[in-house]
Amino acid sequence: MKTDTIPKPQSITTTPFPNSKKVYVQGQLFPEIKVAMREIALDDTVDSFTQKRTPNAPVTVYDTSGPYTDPEKSIDVHQGIERLRESWIMNRGDVEALDDFSSHYANERLENTNLDALRFNHIKKPLRAKKGQNVSQMHYAKKGIITPEMEYIAIRENQKLQEVQQLSKQHPGQSFGAGIPKVITPEFVRDEVAAGRAVIPNNINHPESEPMILGRNFLVKINANIGNSATTSSIEEEVEKAVWACRWGADSIMDLSTGQNIHETREWIIRNSPVPVGTVPIYQALEKVNGKAEDLTWEIFRDTLIEQAEQGVDYFTIHAGVRLAYVPMTAKRITGIVSRGGSIMAKWCLAHHKESFLYTHFEDICEILKQYDVAFSLGDGLRPGSIADANDEAQFAELETLGELTKIAWKHDVQTFIEGPGHVPMHMIKENMDKQLEACGGAPFYTLGPLTTDIAPGYDHITSGIGAAMIGWYGTAMLCYVTPKEHLGLPNKDDVRTGVITYKLAAHAADLAKGHPGAQYRDDALSKARFEFRWEDQFNLSLDPERAREYHDETLPAQGAKIAHFCSMCGPKFCSMKISQEVRDYAAKKEVNEQNALEVGMQEKSQEFKDKGSEVYL
Amino acid sequence: MKTDTIPKPQSITTTPFPNSKKVYVQGQLFPEIKVAMREIALDDTVDSFTQKRTPNAPVTVYDTSGPYTDPEKSIDVHQGIERLRESWIMNRGDVEALDDFSSHYANERLENTNLDALRFNHIKKPLRAKKGQNVSQMHYAKKGIITPEMEYIAIRENQKLQEVQQLSKQHPGQSFGAGIPKVITPEFVRDEVAAGRAVIPNNINHPESEPMILGRNFLVKINANIGNSATTSSIEEEVEKAVWACRWGADSIMDLSTGQNIHETREWIIRNSPVPVGTVPIYQALEKVNGKAEDLTWEIFRDTLIEQAEQGVDYFTIHAGVRLAYVPMTAKRITGIVSRGGSIMAKWCLAHHKESFLYTHFEDICEILKQYDVAFSLGDGLRPGSIADANDEAQFAELETLGELTKIAWKHDVQTFIEGPGHVPMHMIKENMDKQLEACGGAPFYTLGPLTTDIAPGYDHITSGIGAAMIGWYGTAMLCYVTPKEHLGLPNKDDVRTGVITYKLAAHAADLAKGHPGAQYRDDALSKARFEFRWEDQFNLSLDPERAREYHDETLPAQGAKIAHFCSMCGPKFCSMKISQEVRDYAAKKEVNEQNALEVGMQEKSQEFKDKGSEVYL
Repeated sequence: MKTDTIPKPQSITTTPFPNSKKVYVQGQLFPEIKVAMREIALDDTVDSFTQKRTPNAPVTVYDTSGPYTDPEKSIDVHQGIERLRESWIMNRGDVEALDDFSSHYANERLENTNLDALRFNHIKKPLRAKKGQNVSQMHYAKKGIITPEMEYIAIRENQKLQEVQQLSKQHPGQSFGAGIPKVITPEFVRDEVAAGRAVIPNNINHPESEPMILGRNFLVKINANIGNSATTSSIEEEVEKAVWACRWGADSIMDLSTGQNIHETREWIIRNSPVPVGTVPIYQALEKVNGKAEDLTWEIFRDTLIEQAEQGVDYFTIHAGVRLAYVPMTAKRITGIVSRGGSIMAKWCLAHHKESFLYTHFEDICEILKQYDVAFSLGDGLRPGSIADANDEAQFAELETLGELTKIAWKHDVQTFIEGPGHVPMHMIKENMDKQLEACGGAPFYTLGPLTTDIAPGYDHITSGIGAAMIGWYGTAMLCYVTPKEHLGLPNKDDVRTGVITYKLAAHAADLAKGHPGAQYRDDALSKARFEFRWEDQFNLSLDPERAREYHDETLPAQGAKIAHFCSMCGPKFCSMKISQEVRDYAAKKEVNEQNALEVGMQEKSQEFKDKGSEVYL
Repeated sequence: MKTDTIPKPQSITTTPFPNSKKVYVQGQLFPEIKVAMREIALDDTVDSFTQKRTPNAPVTVYDTSGPYTDPEKSIDVHQGIERLRESWIMNRGDVEALDDFSSHYANERLENTNLDALRFNHIKKPLRAKKGQNVSQMHYAKKGIITPEMEYIAIRENQKLQEVQQLSKQHPGQSFGAGIPKVITPEFVRDEVAAGRAVIPNNINHPESEPMILGRNFLVKINANIGNSATTSSIEEEVEKAVWACRWGADSIMDLSTGQNIHETREWIIRNSPVPVGTVPIYQALEKVNGKAEDLTWEIFRDTLIEQAEQGVDYFTIHAGVRLAYVPMTAKRITGIVSRGGSIMAKWCLAHHKESFLYTHFEDICEILKQYDVAFSLGDGLRPGSIADANDEAQFAELETLGELTKIAWKHDVQTFIEGPGHVPMHMIKENMDKQLEACGGAPFYTLGPLTTDIAPGYDHITSGIGAAMIGWYGTAMLCYVTPKEHLGLPNKDDVRTGVITYKLAAHAADLAKGHPGAQYRDDALSKARFEFRWEDQFNLSLDPERAREYHDETLPAQGAKIAHFCSMCGPKFCSMKISQEVRDYAAKKEVNEQNALEVGMQEKSQEFKDKGSEVYL
């Protein structure tokens, strides 16, 4: 067991993206809102005949990286990042700052001087709803209130694409009945949240997070899991992993720490996270009973929920659907129960031979969550852990229960989304989405993969990226990433980056297939850059500009190669892009169209083309 | 331009796979046939109560690695590998060995003493059909003849799984109307080849290749592209890349060399390739006219076809569907024509303002191909190179022409398959398969990806692996791999491995989704090993055992960790697999089932479990 270390300021990555700048779009309903986006500047298109330059408009992209990529902001990981939403929360007048933390455990840790060296030094007093108040976004939404969070999200989801949508022809999508509007309005956001079809994970104690939304009618989001275990990692590494995951595109992170100092690690992560943070509180509860599942009690779990809610966790994975009767359904599986939380609860149920306290105390949990606006991520404790176990009785029995619990949560105006599999062969994926939509009344779906085969450990970001893209297309709101280390070990920074980019591209492929308005704009801009040999633009428009550049430079490192009208793959003679441009220029110049190309002047045109040397760059 | 180098014997990878041995299954119709497979030995399952050991049967997997992974075979890259099919070919009595190569170019190269240092030293005399004979497998098939190649394939496709199928319950698939039998018989192979629904790429001058088949009713295959360009690579590297690609699972390789010494490079590759080799002859033809597309002629192209057919190329990509009238349809595209062959032919068509010699001489090409049993891979010269250009008029116009040409090829009993896209968003992929099946009468489809988004250069093995898995499920017979370097540079060895494994897992995901008999067996074996913490078996059953082991050892390198009943992800307390085994053991021991778990003895059971310490490893 190694010693924990806290982050050094220089251990946090703050490099801006190449040729990009942060832009901030102001709110209209709430002028104090400034929605961060990243604007990628592009080079001009140069006409190959006339050398005339035509500017290409910059491309604005969704930016999850927070203040870290804005050189105007000073970052001090020991202070935490800007508390963006604090005034919005206070202005609603329905919360109070507590003098002390309400959980036994938080106070115990605070009083432990041995932890001083590890502790985040600027812990704020926690906020909680005033007595009788409900501070969930769903509660406001149902009352018809548009919050600043909702307007922020509307602006963010549109990504200024309404300005360019008319320029961007794109393929009509197939959304399987989703209702995605051309432009997202604050009222649309409110309506979706009120209906339970969308969730804004948004704890009042995590004012640092930039509002985002999960829902079938919004951009598909991705989550990155981080966290230490008993065998590896430090606070320092985990905070950098969190910032790093956001840099590459994580819309949310989950801190799944199970090692020592979970409480302190979480404080560091939340104070520095620009995206919502989720946890699985049962993990920490289990540490509190020294790993003996059967010793877990409602009281310990309740204290853990309050502890974490007051730190600012935005959503809790809670495996309340693991009912006693479902546990034996897993006995004949090849891989039994593979959810950690699910297996802990199954063990508890068997040991006590009764329903779990998560299930029996579900309404008590709702009462806690609505005081902080923590959302439910109803855990799929019985998800399949192998192709063989996909879509079985245990899995779908639990899903039905999750549907029932969703309705209870909604009764309390607690925002709720539902976790899904797992390992599922391609042809059985859609059934998961269809059953979830039906059972859970349209509550957002949040899936892990699914992995489409079991035989490629070391490449499970890809086996699962396939399933993730497909289920995203079918309607899943958030895709939980899988890294190359899945099943084998804990991800390092490079694995996190690979996992995030893989899921980012899967989510984007899903947006394209759904026909999300404007989704194709970035593809088109990148492809146009590629065709025009604007190499720098091609790199800069990509999800991972550094890697694209590095791969290019591996074979053609010279700076000149990045203005070359060919690349190492084909060399100059075989460059289809180059020949294709010649074809196009030729067609344009001669005003050839489908009709006259075939009808008139064949020989004459042919001769002219040859006379000019049959090349376009004369 | 660097100097070319020929392979050193030690530059070829020959390490066998861990805990695996080569097994050879004998033919029944043709007892001289010995079909190579790889058998992975497994550890015993150890009962956690009794410590009783139960053996796990070895798992036999499809093996494309050829003799390189058989320690019994001696490999000498300067001699080439065993000429497995030579006697089968000669025994048919319909071929003759020529005294000299029939192409002008082959003789010119042979006479050039400057090339002696680069030349493969044991060039055999070429074989050709006797006058009036047709040596294609389709020709034999239509005549009702079952060849040794067909029996080899039947045995190979079954992978001895008929012995274990009854043990392996698997999910029924969704095959979209494919007709996959439970067991592949030689007669089924013959029938599929006769109907044109399957192709055996199988040049009589490449007797080193182990027969394999492409068809919707067989296992999904993958192809790896290798080859140098004007800017990079040597013969030595390319031969090792070929062997390396086969090692990781390439069912076919394409030599897309466009640099110098293409002829000599190809000889080295074919003599050492245990899988079929494809080329795009127009690339070499273009080199012969110094890169000026408009100077290409039928005579030069014809000489190139014969040159390559007599070296043993198993299939030719021929872009005969690029018709003059289709070229202007590409003028408004974002990325024009991205196929190298397509752009060369488009340029030729425009320069001459007539149909290409590939189209006008199509029957002449058939006459050549049937003398060597070279298969057509009808190239999609107008495939889309961006999401924006997917499924457009140009692409589908060409596909119709490819369908017409297929029927002409079949008239000559020339085996034919059809190339497909490219870049296509997920929801538009199936239309490609459906249109191809209809236009091309069931001829096998061979697609490049498709890439499902354009915005992730550096990760295009994944953007395309998604599309590949899906189109494989829909019915594509062979998936052409894409490496992480796509659009950026030429792949190195590590890229080839990543590309091959990515496509191997995509092809397998497709087999699972189609419900290919026995496909799930390896998944189940690996998942069972995973659940039982047989780490070594989990590594060895995976597509890339080395990488799986390396990733595991990165966090837990000690040998002891590989017999541990937990891993670095969760540590011992949080291990769901371990808890799950406890649940299962508990259920088994108490004979709990769904009924009595709920009905009787709850308290008593609960007490017993606690009395035993609530742990299973007592």
